[in-house]
Amino acid sequence: MSSHPITKYTTESSWALIESKFSPHGKETLAKLIRFLEEEVWPARELSHLQMPEDSTRWKTIVPVIEELKDRAKQLGLWNLFLSKRHYPQHGTDFTNLEYAVMAELLGRGGHMASEVVNCSAPDTGNMEVLAKYGTAEQQKKWLEPLLRGEIRSAFAMTERFIASSDATNIRTSLRLEGDEIVINGHKWWISGAGDTRTRVHILMGKSDASNPNAHEQQSVVLVPADAPGVKVIRPMKVFGYDDAPEGHCEIIYDNVRVPVSNLVLGWGKGFEIIQGRLGPGRIHHCMRAIGAASAALDLMLQRVTDPAKKTFGKYLHEHGSVIADIARSRADIESSRLLVLSAALQIDNFTAKGALKEIGIAKFFVPSMALGVIDRAIQAYGAEGVCQDQHLAKSWAELRTMRIADGPDAVHLQQQVGQRELRRVGEVVERAAAIKKKEKEILEKAGSGSKSLSHL
Amino acid sequence: MSSHPITKYTTESSWALIESKFSPHGKETLAKLIRFLEEEVWPARELSHLQMPEDSTRWKTIVPVIEELKDRAKQLGLWNLFLSKRHYPQHGTDFTNLEYAVMAELLGRGGHMASEVVNCSAPDTGNMEVLAKYGTAEQQKKWLEPLLRGEIRSAFAMTERFIASSDATNIRTSLRLEGDEIVINGHKWWISGAGDTRTRVHILMGKSDASNPNAHEQQSVVLVPADAPGVKVIRPMKVFGYDDAPEGHCEIIYDNVRVPVSNLVLGWGKGFEIIQGRLGPGRIHHCMRAIGAASAALDLMLQRVTDPAKKTFGKYLHEHGSVIADIARSRADIESSRLLVLSAALQIDNFTAKGALKEIGIAKFFVPSMALGVIDRAIQAYGAEGVCQDQHLAKSWAELRTMRIADGPDAVHLQQQVGQRELRRVGEVVERAAAIKKKEKEILEKAGSGSKSLSHL
Amino acid sequence: MSSHPITKYTTESSWALIESKFSPHGKETLAKLIRFLEEEVWPARELSHLQMPEDSTRWKTIVPVIEELKDRAKQLGLWNLFLSKRHYPQHGTDFTNLEYAVMAELLGRGGHMASEVVNCSAPDTGNMEVLAKYGTAEQQKKWLEPLLRGEIRSAFAMTERFIASSDATNIRTSLRLEGDEIVINGHKWWISGAGDTRTRVHILMGKSDASNPNAHEQQSVVLVPADAPGVKVIRPMKVFGYDDAPEGHCEIIYDNVRVPVSNLVLGWGKGFEIIQGRLGPGRIHHCMRAIGAASAALDLMLQRVTDPAKKTFGKYLHEHGSVIADIARSRADIESSRLLVLSAALQIDNFTAKGALKEIGIAKFFVPSMALGVIDRAIQAYGAEGVCQDQHLAKSWAELRTMRIADGPDAVHLQQQVGQRELRRVGEVVERAAAIKKKEKEILEKAGSGSKSLSHL
Amino acid sequence: MSSHPITKYTTESSWALIESKFSPHGKETLAKLIRFLEEEVWPARELSHLQMPEDSTRWKTIVPVIEELKDRAKQLGLWNLFLSKRHYPQHGTDFTNLEYAVMAELLGRGGHMASEVVNCSAPDTGNMEVLAKYGTAEQQKKWLEPLLRGEIRSAFAMTERFIASSDATNIRTSLRLEGDEIVINGHKWWISGAGDTRTRVHILMGKSDASNPNAHEQQSVVLVPADAPGVKVIRPMKVFGYDDAPEGHCEIIYDNVRVPVSNLVLGWGKGFEIIQGRLGPGRIHHCMRAIGAASAALDLMLQRVTDPAKKTFGKYLHEHGSVIADIARSRADIESSRLLVLSAALQIDNFTAKGALKEIGIAKFFVPSMALGVIDRAIQAYGAEGVCQDQHLAKSWAELRTMRIADGPDAVHLQQQVGQRELRRVGEVVERAAAIKKKEKEILEKAGSGSKSLSHL
Repeated sequence: MSSHPITKYTTESSWALIESKFSPHGKETLAKLIRFLEEEVWPARELSHLQMPEDSTRWKTIVPVIEELKDRAKQLGLWNLFLSKRHYPQHGTDFTNLEYAVMAELLGRGGHMASEVVNCSAPDTGNMEVLAKYGTAEQQKKWLEPLLRGEIRSAFAMTERFIASSDATNIRTSLRLEGDEIVINGHKWWISGAGDTRTRVHILMGKSDASNPNAHEQQSVVLVPADAPGVKVIRPMKVFGYDDAPEGHCEIIYDNVRVPVSNLVLGWGKGFEIIQGRLGPGRIHHCMRAIGAASAALDLMLQRVTDPAKKTFGKYLHEHGSVIADIARSRADIESSRLLVLSAALQIDNFTAKGALKEIGIAKFFVPSMALGVIDRAIQAYGAEGVCQDQHLAKSWAELRTMRIADGPDAVHLQQQVGQRELRRVGEVVERAAAIKKKEKEILEKAGSGSKSLSHL
Repeated sequence: MSSHPITKYTTESSWALIESKFSPHGKETLAKLIRFLEEEVWPARELSHLQMPEDSTRWKTIVPVIEELKDRAKQLGLWNLFLSKRHYPQHGTDFTNLEYAVMAELLGRGGHMASEVVNCSAPDTGNMEVLAKYGTAEQQKKWLEPLLRGEIRSAFAMTERFIASSDATNIRTSLRLEGDEIVINGHKWWISGAGDTRTRVHILMGKSDASNPNAHEQQSVVLVPADAPGVKVIRPMKVFGYDDAPEGHCEIIYDNVRVPVSNLVLGWGKGFEIIQGRLGPGRIHHCMRAIGAASAALDLMLQRVTDPAKKTFGKYLHEHGSVIADIARSRADIESSRLLVLSAALQIDNFTAKGALKEIGIAKFFVPSMALGVIDRAIQAYGAEGVCQDQHLAKSWAELRTMRIADGPDAVHLQQQVGQRELRRVGEVVERAAAIKKKEKEILEKAGSGSKSLSHL
Repeated sequence: MSSHPITKYTTESSWALIESKFSPHGKETLAKLIRFLEEEVWPARELSHLQMPEDSTRWKTIVPVIEELKDRAKQLGLWNLFLSKRHYPQHGTDFTNLEYAVMAELLGRGGHMASEVVNCSAPDTGNMEVLAKYGTAEQQKKWLEPLLRGEIRSAFAMTERFIASSDATNIRTSLRLEGDEIVINGHKWWISGAGDTRTRVHILMGKSDASNPNAHEQQSVVLVPADAPGVKVIRPMKVFGYDDAPEGHCEIIYDNVRVPVSNLVLGWGKGFEIIQGRLGPGRIHHCMRAIGAASAALDLMLQRVTDPAKKTFGKYLHEHGSVIADIARSRADIESSRLLVLSAALQIDNFTAKGALKEIGIAKFFVPSMALGVIDRAIQAYGAEGVCQDQHLAKSWAELRTMRIADGPDAVHLQQQVGQRELRRVGEVVERAAAIKKKEKEILEKAGSGSKSLSHL
Repeated sequence: MSSHPITKYTTESSWALIESKFSPHGKETLAKLIRFLEEEVWPARELSHLQMPEDSTRWKTIVPVIEELKDRAKQLGLWNLFLSKRHYPQHGTDFTNLEYAVMAELLGRGGHMASEVVNCSAPDTGNMEVLAKYGTAEQQKKWLEPLLRGEIRSAFAMTERFIASSDATNIRTSLRLEGDEIVINGHKWWISGAGDTRTRVHILMGKSDASNPNAHEQQSVVLVPADAPGVKVIRPMKVFGYDDAPEGHCEIIYDNVRVPVSNLVLGWGKGFEIIQGRLGPGRIHHCMRAIGAASAALDLMLQRVTDPAKKTFGKYLHEHGSVIADIARSRADIESSRLLVLSAALQIDNFTAKGALKEIGIAKFFVPSMALGVIDRAIQAYGAEGVCQDQHLAKSWAELRTMRIADGPDAVHLQQQVGQRELRRVGEVVERAAAIKKKEKEILEKAGSGSKSLSHL
């Protein structure tokens, strides 16, 4: 029987399916990560909370214990785990998407902290991918390298207020070339990371060529220093009452912001190309963290329903009604979701994100709803304690609720990424059915029978 | 990109996860099976329906085209695929449970017919497993060998009328030793296969030692010739409006039936042990066939919603409301379920059914409901045609509905096999949480802080 | 506390809401109906089953006990209860739609039998409404009067094979005037009642003016004697294996059928107008019978889960898992659905079906799914007995499943009847929000504050 | 057609069901309330938000505009609407529970504000009911009268930390008689209203007789002045990220708090009796407010999906996928829930809360989940704007999520209040079935047939 410590967190059977796809180094690192999380990161969570003040100074706070853990992670080689050498040969680490996916689940068990500690936090991860793939040497030196070292943070500025930006062609922020400068004017919100004092750069998408007949060539991406004149952070947006300081998700007005034309990424009109590449693997990582959150919630639920101090009407909670069934369903939901996402991660490894769009789309709409369900059941088991600040459950739920909206709402993934792609299978299906029907006709004629009407599969 | 024809039926990504676990022979056989099904079996379905009369003579009908296809399957080496040499070294074939699982999905795409053609039909499969594992040489010669050759069929007689036999300790059929004979008296129903004229033996479970304090040692299993005096087949039970002739699911009274004591299997009081071994892999096979049925239903739905003859209000069906979303959900449900069952199959390969009880339990309650949902959506897309005899959908739905009841109702699997097993993880979870808490305390003391109350995962 | 016997079947609280809308005669008749059902109809169900043969002669069988009960119902004044004098002053009975709705629930508790016994069976009910509203004196004398006396039965011929007839403009059966005859050619199926030997007339819709630019004036309705030359009943359609003999739902080819032009109903091109009037109250009646079926299923479930003979693992079924919660949910579902349908029935009484289209649409998609859920839970509680012929549950489920398709599939009601009607409220909602916003602005200006962005309701 | 303005908020058909149960005064007041809300309350919402500071001073803020509106409401006779004269003849207003229920829905459309404005806020409402029903003249003078005048506020102190207080017998706060004082020691949390500077009294339940063999006589209720020495408010609990200042839901330690024995309510050991009376109508009011919140969310959703500024991919949101179906479902859910709760309110009017426990139980578990679903769909339609502070949707969702926990979690209502009560119907159901069976037997014997096995309903 496998003795890898991951089987404390996933079933042996799902590990058995993927173990042969892990390199020895991947396996070792996974084991090391588990030890690090159990022995150093999770025990420091409480302290990290205490080191974050409740008043407005928290927007300027850099939590000391997290900085210490980052140093430790670097020493241990648990750093930039998300960036696969396969796709980013120059800056990447040794791990495949599949290997990192398993690690990402573990990181996601306790909120954002662990991801930050190993320098695998959104939006930095996607931003580093963009810079690694499309950045000039100069851009990489200035922004990518300090990001890879975890010295600075970054923001990703796409979503806009007052429009439906789930259709990115609606974006209105204007990018205008004046001499050797790009002038930026626009009103964005939900700009993650923009509240953080360590953030040095915004990767911003805007409209540079509004009259281009090809709607997918109207956008460009530029790098905006966080302290450029005209970058006005208006307020943090809240998610179900949470403001996620110190990173935050901010409303920002870009008011005649000027950056040198050398801050353009990849080229004029390449905005769409850039953001589409950016979103693939990141979605899988989000999904795995969501599975980690769900899995941790189930473990918490197990503790609660077997807690003798929480008996009601003379019975353990697990002896009441449908509690056991809820637990069983949660287990099944988690296992099936994990396998789904791991198969998508493997597809990315084999065929890049572009060859895995259906798999990514499935994961993107399937996993958040699944995880919300698991966590909601855990909240219900915890009662009032489940909705408040004494457990991570409510916050975890609120974060996952936004996953059904961010990076494209569920409906887009259902309709476009998965549904429309399924429709493309019709040709093959119809052809197969016709071939069967043709042979059926021969058989029936030979047997002297007329056909009835059953369709074929 | 993989060119194995299975990727017409499963996504490339799920095939990529398991491909390395297939032997070359497994892969070849899988490809051969696909060809056989597409070119010979499915084209013969319609004829097989026409060769089955509508009146009562159908109970005595042996469908000629199915017999021909059985010969063909034997020639092709597509025979007894379910019986893994790993567990049944003497009689088994070369395939692992995982390999057969993939094949079983394909067999399940078109009702029972294909399973019968390759001699992988329930209840014969489980019965052959019992005889191969526990039968005496004499029993094997008499019953197992002709079953393996597909010359006879068999029934499995456990469920009883008037009691709740999902709790097998309720079984009341009495087995009494008189001299060298066992006398059987009882009233059973839902005895699958008992209506078939080819059925020669009933594997029957009864109570041989009702006063044994260990409720799991009160039962024994005996082999009852189908034509033994006193075996009275009362009527076929219908499932919704279907009677499943010629096999049927029959009500049977065993009225002073006498069999020689040599027909006892394994030993007195070994009934529970026998049936528990019997149910594991069979449940996985059922689940894979269910996934095949769901997958075929989705393919039919794709054909319907793109059929120009079925436009309404000037639009294709797929252009209306939530049809595309329904298709996307069905795809996600099928993919996640398949991976779940395949991981259970692999677990059986690695640790036998006993080491895979949780995985089997998850599959058993998860898959039938999933498949019912997929097929129900397809029925809705087909409208009136979906509920009637012109498509296989309604029949397929009805068969799957019984899967939520047969071999233990959903609730038993949710509660016992999965929920209770999850509870056993509490010790480990609590221990881990305590270890983290302990380290947390040290850290907080070192930092001079008091703890708040966040629980750990 | 109310002592009306209806409170054995509905909660006191829902009865309290509607009691004042019942006339004394309505209340008395309701009580009489309850007595008749309990003392005469339900006790005769088993006999009616036994009087219906299993072989093909059942298509020609008129069940004696049902005919006797019909006489009895007439004597008791429990006859044609569905036909409200308010809308059909000449032929109607004293009852409002609301009053009949409550009666219809009771009729629906045990399949079709009770409805037939009181001459309230579909499709006769809708057909009688059509004839009462639009028939000429001659048509009424010939067809309506014997239908009202229960001497003959009728069919409604609209749905067609090979097209998507949920969009009635797709209908292709041609009606051609030749001299003083109408010539009918078409291929229909799912023609309820067409199998019954007592059926004398088909109310048929066809296309009389295919080139009319108004798609809703292309259709006409004609009365076709069941024995007219060229009316070819091809086969009964099955619903999940059930054929519903002796009425059946038949496939029919109308092959050059000729009827006198006096058989035209209302006028050329009036087909749409006629069928739309036909469908309103009938949908409510279907819904109430569905609620009756669900309510009876819940009562059966209560019996099963408290049956000492069905204990498993030492406990009553109701002591396991989520059984009690399932029962509670079923109760809540039934109560909320009933009130919804009763409010729609009252709306029809107050404003005719045309003024109640939204309410009818809500009932039409809400109730069948609700009832399917309740019955499915009861099936699960009954285990194998639940899916077979020994309980009415599986048949009841199958009938209700077709309700999600017949008279327009769920999606049509969701989208057109309810969703689109909700959208029409937008104007009013926006206006209200704007008025509030305007006052808000005044208040804020007075208070010297700038507005934030909260929308209004 | 009815021209009462309520039909802008409820369907005509549900109003038609209840209109005759409204007194003329009830109808007038309802119309007046609608006008007041539309013209004065909702336009002041934004200002009330602006008058509530974001920093910690908000705990001490009394929002001026709300105080002004309270005066206005008193003038208009829109005051203490919840307290029905029927049950509280001395202090109550003219309205029945049914009448107030309809008003409560309207109040609930915009958060807590409107309820406070008309002095119908929890926990004051339940507290006033307790004092009106059980208070001594002195207690009423001191606490009830200023509460009725809206001059002070109050808290209800039952829930305790560290135990599962959904089983109230677990409560551990001790009440000890010392001379003519009661000494209180305990640790409570989620004490609503305790953060408000206007709160003058806590109605506290504790254990006064822990060794009483009757677990329901161990508790007593005492009145504790909010400023009594030893009342230590520890912290506000948050719900998701909201703290609901200035009322709050606080953690409180009662540390040797002493109150005169005259502060005991009703008598020693009467705690259970008091709180059970307290919870009935209040639950219905919560449910109606929840329906109001859902109804307002649906109206917001209608505005969003028809907003031309929010088109995506060239279409209005309502033209995409399942948006229309979501709207239709929400409408059906709201209508059915409202009728359910109104029937429960009528039941309370007719038979007091004690005679309406099943109806109240149904409403209590049915409505919050329904409303959460409706609001969640609206959130999804609003995208990122739906989860943040710019709409009330996320806050509304979070409040409703606690309704599935507060006043007993869903499971308690499902199991105890509804499920167990349904089981009590078994006797009647079995008796009816037996009577039918008996008559059936007579009929079959007369007809010379043997019975089959169909159960009866």
